Amino acid sequence: MLAHIARRICHFHGHQISSAILRRMRSSLKTISPISAISLWTYSSQLQDFSQPNPSWSPEMRKFYDHYNAQCDTDTENFENKTGPWRKLPSYNRSIKHATGGIYLSKLIQAKARLFTRSVQEEGAAFEYVAFFNKEEKICICLFQPGHLLEGAPGHVHGGAIATMIDTVTGMLAGYLSGPSVTANLNINYRSPVPLGSVVIIHCALDRIEGRKTFITCRVTSTDESKVYTEANAVVFVLDFCPEDCP
Amino acid sequence: MLAHIARRICHFHGHQISSAILRRMRSSLKTISPISAISLWTYSSQLQDFSQPNPSWSPEMRKFYDHYNAQCDTDTENFENKTGPWRKLPSYNRSIKHATGGIYLSKLIQAKARLFTRSVQEEGAAFEYVAFFNKEEKICICLFQPGHLLEGAPGHVHGGAIATMIDTVTGMLAGYLSGPSVTANLNINYRSPVPLGSVVIIHCALDRIEGRKTFITCRVTSTDESKVYTEANAVVFVLDFCPEDCP
Repeated sequence: MLAHIARRICHFHGHQISSAILRRMRSSLKTISPISAISLWTYSSQLQDFSQPNPSWSPEMRKFYDHYNAQCDTDTENFENKTGPWRKLPSYNRSIKHATGGIYLSKLIQAKARLFTRSVQEEGAAFEYVAFFNKEEKICICLFQPGHLLEGAPGHVHGGAIATMIDTVTGMLAGYLSGPSVTANLNINYRSPVPLGSVVIIHCALDRIEGRKTFITCRVTSTDESKVYTEANAVVFVLDFCPEDCP
Repeated sequence: MLAHIARRICHFHGHQISSAILRRMRSSLKTISPISAISLWTYSSQLQDFSQPNPSWSPEMRKFYDHYNAQCDTDTENFENKTGPWRKLPSYNRSIKHATGGIYLSKLIQAKARLFTRSVQEEGAAFEYVAFFNKEEKICICLFQPGHLLEGAPGHVHGGAIATMIDTVTGMLAGYLSGPSVTANLNINYRSPVPLGSVVIIHCALDRIEGRKTFITCRVTSTDESKVYTEANAVVFVLDFCPEDCP
């Protein structure tokens, strides 16, 4: 259960958390009773997954979603029962909103807070994305359709919005491979501007693991991969929550 | 005038734009007639500047704003009349929304598009910031109060939101120092998580200029500078719009 909670936390990273904070978070997670943990699991399965198709998705977005989704056995979070090469990763608008127990976690719960990439309710206006994970190949791919609220240069996506998605998907990959983690470094090369409303694919792959550092490479390309918009490297620092439970 | 338009464009960067796109943008800017250019200037002076104090600003945010603002001669965009060490940089919710003329620019105008950092209307919910520029010292500082819609790790700011602000402020500095530019590289080290709702200062300074590449260093700190949250380096590529007019 702790591994499950930790997996959720590791989606919402982007920081190198200090050792004091790590100790508090670890301590808090360990104080969660089995009952509250079960409650969290039960409740979380009813949360809205925002990585589901909606009317704002373009035919191209939907086509690639269907392509990968057809290679997934199920859409549930129950990893133990999965056998297909791809797994669709769910995406909520908060991390551990519904967790109970744990002094530090309680302090963190702010009713209005929302995950940055899921904070705009209007479908199609901001971050439309869905990620798939291939454990055997140690890769994540993410279909990303940036909406009109993500503008940077006129008619194109803001570099910060691209960085946000790179941070998100590299974090997902590191989290599902190695357990809870936080981003220590992002090194991003912007090659070409991404038009607003287009569909791009974010490819993340494990490069190597050195101790608690996971090195991930990332490319943002057109759907046919003929055009490379952005390239990046990420160093993700794996936390030491519940190592015996982590995947 | 072109320099003025270019300054606006350089706020909304984050990409290394291909030479073909550069040619089209340059060509479009050059086709803007003096009349339309004057119209743009006139209209733009009436646009809402979102870097003004609002009720969501904390007393700490307001205190530092007043500190720097008191060292600015005026708040207008008329650089020629300024003599103080600091200049407050305006911030709109679009780049060249109101420009007329220019085939490429017209194609870029999408009524619903909004600058990523100014796309949420609720005051205090997302990116509250104001930047000041010191031309003599070649630095920009930005007061940033991240709102509850920018969450990453529970209770803390998403790494992508921090990257977005770093991209924004380094782009401002490069733009005001060297003219229109786009981000080629961002290298970000996350040292410590930024609590949601806190106030941080983003310090950007010119490192060096090599040809058309401008190298900028960046630190995100607490307001008393005792804590460093994030460090970054940016390489910004200066475009070759209207070199004779650029500041």
